[in-house]
Amino acid sequence: MKVKSLKELYMEELRDVYDAENQIVKALPKMIKSTSEPKLRQAFESHVEETRGHVQRLEQIFTGLGEPAKAENCDGIRGILDEGEKTIGEGEQGAVLDAGLIAGAQRVEHYEMAAYGSLKTWATQLGENQAAQLLEETLNEEKKADEKLSQIATSGVNAQASRARGASA
Amino acid sequence: MKVKSLKELYMEELRDVYDAENQIVKALPKMIKSTSEPKLRQAFESHVEETRGHVQRLEQIFTGLGEPAKAENCDGIRGILDEGEKTIGEGEQGAVLDAGLIAGAQRVEHYEMAAYGSLKTWATQLGENQAAQLLEETLNEEKKADEKLSQIATSGVNAQASRARGASA
Repeated sequence: MKVKSLKELYMEELRDVYDAENQIVKALPKMIKSTSEPKLRQAFESHVEETRGHVQRLEQIFTGLGEPAKAENCDGIRGILDEGEKTIGEGEQGAVLDAGLIAGAQRVEHYEMAAYGSLKTWATQLGENQAAQLLEETLNEEKKADEKLSQIATSGVNAQASRARGASA
Repeated sequence: MKVKSLKELYMEELRDVYDAENQIVKALPKMIKSTSEPKLRQAFESHVEETRGHVQRLEQIFTGLGEPAKAENCDGIRGILDEGEKTIGEGEQGAVLDAGLIAGAQRVEHYEMAAYGSLKTWATQLGENQAAQLLEETLNEEKKADEKLSQIATSGVNAQASRARGASA
């Protein structure tokens, strides 16, 4: 199907990010199980709740548009989460794996920041002001989640990881 | 293979982003061909050059580490670029497609911002100061590229796209 209007593009990207959020809700429990850093576990746990809220906001936007909440395969998040799975498979619990988990989660956050940034601007352009506000709220939460992860990395995890002994350390 | 040290994790992520940059160099010409907006074409064209520079910086870092420049399948960028291909396939040249191209390119930039952010912090932690500086230069260029895309979107493309007539416009 050809996408011929900004409204259609907007709808398509809403379905893409709706799939992304649902994929993230499913992926987070494995990340929680893989970390050994209490602060990181807590950050992931509170992000599960937050992500469920993002799903609900998107459903609210679909309802406002009179459209069913439909997910469309989000290849971007799929690829990023596949990388995360690989990191978990290659690591042993500890600070090095935690550093890898943080890096993976920050890719997820950045993907979402880009997606919600575009969606928010399009919603504004289309006069969908309530949707624009909901999208901005989620965007701000993704930014904060990203900052929190940076803080956890630099306030201990990276330093601890650099003391771990590996083949080429 | 198990990743047991921060150095090993760093090497692995360098290979991942090296693959990402090479994938982007290959993807940009199709994006250039698909846009009808001169400013966007110019932004993509100058980003091809910039991306080649990022590849070279990574090669310089590999050399400094005494390691061959090796690419490792970057699933994240593969997924994001697959989405971009889909956008191109579904659109007709014009402002709506341009808005979609910008959104796709911003996902690419954000992925890279996350990757270079982690790499830079790890390089610093590992005392790889020259590498940290090179990674920061690239990080800043990705941020600027992202800002430029936002500017192109909001200074004309989105408004033009909202005037395009589609089935549900």
